[in-house]
Amino acid sequence: MSLFEAGLTMRATPWSVLQSLSHATRPATRLPIALWKRTFSSSACLQLRTSELADTSLKSIKVDPDRLWDTIHSTAKWTEPKSSPSIKEDIRTAGLSRLTLGKEDRQARDWFVQTTESLGCKTYVDQIGNIFAIRPGLNSDDNGRVPATFAGSHLDSQPSGGRFDGVLGVAAGVEMLRVLNDNWIETEGPVGVVNWTNEEGAKYPISMMGSGVWAGRVSLEDAWNLKSVHPVSEVTTVKQELESIGYLGSIPASHKNGVRIGAHFELHLEQGPKLEVARQAIGVVEGVQAYKWFTVTIKGRESHAGTTDFANRADALYSAATFITMVREVARSLGGLASVGMLAVSPSSVNTVPGEVRLSLDIRHPSDKALNEMLKTIQGICRQIESNAENTSGGRTHLTRITIDMKEDFASNAVKFSPEAIRCVEQSATDLLGEATKFQRMTSGAGHDSVCTSMHCPTAMIFIPCKDGISHNPSEWCEKEDCAIGANVLLHSVLRMDRLRKERGEFE
Amino acid sequence: MSLFEAGLTMRATPWSVLQSLSHATRPATRLPIALWKRTFSSSACLQLRTSELADTSLKSIKVDPDRLWDTIHSTAKWTEPKSSPSIKEDIRTAGLSRLTLGKEDRQARDWFVQTTESLGCKTYVDQIGNIFAIRPGLNSDDNGRVPATFAGSHLDSQPSGGRFDGVLGVAAGVEMLRVLNDNWIETEGPVGVVNWTNEEGAKYPISMMGSGVWAGRVSLEDAWNLKSVHPVSEVTTVKQELESIGYLGSIPASHKNGVRIGAHFELHLEQGPKLEVARQAIGVVEGVQAYKWFTVTIKGRESHAGTTDFANRADALYSAATFITMVREVARSLGGLASVGMLAVSPSSVNTVPGEVRLSLDIRHPSDKALNEMLKTIQGICRQIESNAENTSGGRTHLTRITIDMKEDFASNAVKFSPEAIRCVEQSATDLLGEATKFQRMTSGAGHDSVCTSMHCPTAMIFIPCKDGISHNPSEWCEKEDCAIGANVLLHSVLRMDRLRKERGEFE
Repeated sequence: MSLFEAGLTMRATPWSVLQSLSHATRPATRLPIALWKRTFSSSACLQLRTSELADTSLKSIKVDPDRLWDTIHSTAKWTEPKSSPSIKEDIRTAGLSRLTLGKEDRQARDWFVQTTESLGCKTYVDQIGNIFAIRPGLNSDDNGRVPATFAGSHLDSQPSGGRFDGVLGVAAGVEMLRVLNDNWIETEGPVGVVNWTNEEGAKYPISMMGSGVWAGRVSLEDAWNLKSVHPVSEVTTVKQELESIGYLGSIPASHKNGVRIGAHFELHLEQGPKLEVARQAIGVVEGVQAYKWFTVTIKGRESHAGTTDFANRADALYSAATFITMVREVARSLGGLASVGMLAVSPSSVNTVPGEVRLSLDIRHPSDKALNEMLKTIQGICRQIESNAENTSGGRTHLTRITIDMKEDFASNAVKFSPEAIRCVEQSATDLLGEATKFQRMTSGAGHDSVCTSMHCPTAMIFIPCKDGISHNPSEWCEKEDCAIGANVLLHSVLRMDRLRKERGEFE
Repeated sequence: MSLFEAGLTMRATPWSVLQSLSHATRPATRLPIALWKRTFSSSACLQLRTSELADTSLKSIKVDPDRLWDTIHSTAKWTEPKSSPSIKEDIRTAGLSRLTLGKEDRQARDWFVQTTESLGCKTYVDQIGNIFAIRPGLNSDDNGRVPATFAGSHLDSQPSGGRFDGVLGVAAGVEMLRVLNDNWIETEGPVGVVNWTNEEGAKYPISMMGSGVWAGRVSLEDAWNLKSVHPVSEVTTVKQELESIGYLGSIPASHKNGVRIGAHFELHLEQGPKLEVARQAIGVVEGVQAYKWFTVTIKGRESHAGTTDFANRADALYSAATFITMVREVARSLGGLASVGMLAVSPSSVNTVPGEVRLSLDIRHPSDKALNEMLKTIQGICRQIESNAENTSGGRTHLTRITIDMKEDFASNAVKFSPEAIRCVEQSATDLLGEATKFQRMTSGAGHDSVCTSMHCPTAMIFIPCKDGISHNPSEWCEKEDCAIGANVLLHSVLRMDRLRKERGEFE
């Protein structure tokens, strides 16, 4: 049952009253779709239609910064209890620990369903636990045949994560619903908020899992059968946990025959320092860069650190150090990124020249082509290091031989968001901030659920500054004002897209 | 009871027969020192006195390569059983696993005592388990008042060690005793073979432990109280294990009031590739280089590898890579060595720029002064890396700040061996090899028991080539011929030193 089902009653009741109704007490009268659709738009109350909103009036419709802030931090109460006896109360450092599909995630999900339903939405849970809350528009039906324009993100967190990553986007979506209600705004098509399952991939190791299944890039079976890695378990699977927390829905998790999406906007903290350093309020995200992950194995020869002169060493760690410095130079010169985050040395003894090093390599570039060029150059560097190994001319190459092997573990192509969705964000930012110097177009360095939605609908993202660029950490922080600016851009982007979709005849 | 006690009988019995007598069956008649000392030199048998040996006749006295080879490999039977069901029989790859003071070490010690006693030695075990086997000379007493000229090394090994490290020096000492007996040679002073306890420091973590206690650089209490680290145990101590294997002697472990040493020669495999590369048979070791060990902690800032551009990173691993490459360049330019053998990255995630790296640094130089100069330059490099951290000029230094801290863990000063002991080795090498191109003077990169003996008596070392410079590894290998050349140089060095000590009136 949802507010949809309360059709006529709803129209006679102020939103503020409706908001206070609990899930259980709302009336259950079911009306034919055609009827309450018409009723919804023909209410006697003064209502604004999106298509009637000029840019100037749009500009005056804004989120409530305090209410948004409260939403963000009140949802943080569902967090795993710290092992320390005294839970930190300082919201600037307390962070968030809400692994997907745990008890705390269920609490956050329950809140999301209850809140969005109380704000006039109908909620849908699909087979992978994605929750779609849809607020009807002037042109809606109850079966999702008219796809909604969504604001979306995720409520799960890293094991020791921050309070904004994902949560900000969902909370701003909820705030959007409130602002629409406060202002008696009726959108042309339905709008909604979506909470994607397991974006982090921290407990079940596929990130963007829920949106990935929805988009068809991850199979439902694969996702269902994932086993917990945090804690490691051979028993607990995604499907079991979905079932046990009551979020194994029956709707297909599919862009084709599940809940369809008309457009998707995601507000997120940047997770990097660019906006903060540039003192800009908004990043208009044009896409997500391509990236590849490798395991690099460098083999040399163990030898005694005191008795082996440099000319007779095959020092795997020295070669690794050379690799690390050279690879960064390549990335810098080609406008990409390269990072070595993991490195293990063998045999790991203070007076033994390492015989083997394994390291991880993460390379990124906004362009697939440039990424492949980077990769080629890096492979060239490997050959160069191998042939530069000292003393190879002396016929004793077995003493100084270095070999480098790169194994690709993961690849994600570059994503370009839809130009019209980007334009909605950029126009909103321009209108709200007044001048173009307050924002920049940028490419997301990290993956987000929007990567998956962009495969099937117009998608764009909005970034806000992130203190010191720190994320996935309890000290992750955004300023209240920045959250509000971001939520305003999100709200306006959704409304502009709704208008655009109307203009394009999508609701006819 | 020892052969000393069999005085007169011994003189009447050919050495070959004596060698076949077991410890238990040898006669027990005790004679006054003065008597058997005289008797020993006045036997009717044809005997050579060291002082009567001209260089030309010395040259013809040589070890038996096959017998030496057999000794080396037969002692390898006391090795810890491999976990694999089939023990490798190939001596080229089987290696040796004989941690100090274990059952296998006891077996090797028993063999050493029994063999040296059967070869005419009296054995002494001191409080730290060092075993001194002394063969009387023309000028000997039974109380060690005349210090012997020793060949010495160790029978313990690394957990997964080679068959030559230490064993070669002891086996060559035993072979020396056999050659002296075969040739009816009487030395002027006593000569001996010493098996030092726990040279490796693998099970009880002080290397050169037995010789260190003897030399007074490690206290007996400290050594006794060491706890096993292989396997880790809070219970098993050196003293307990010495007692349990029957090698807790009563003689003070002291160069002052224990067994005194007139001179010490140690034959060892090089453990590096220099001789092999230079195709030389002998290294005349002049000393041991100075070295220092450090723990280096590099702190930066964790950040997202996809979202943090280079200008805003404080990448601890990139700084470590720069450190590793720069430090090697410093060492190379100053004629020393620098090695990073251990490195740990935190937080160790493929898409997180590392916030902290800890690494070990081992620096070495034959000169203490030059080592300190190296250290100063390296400290300068640390400051340089700290100040080179990007973007520090932008007033946002907290984003890109790198700090490097170096903590000294261990230091060992340079050791210069005694010129006359070196000369004994060099003259022996010259005489035996014919030309000076067949050997080189060198500095030992690693520590050896000779470092400790050199503090109190003329000491020198002899190196032989080591296949591929590999040591502390089952594939450690020396050729039979090289072992024999090394043993000959050892034998002749001891005899030359004996002659020299006689000339200097040390036995009067």
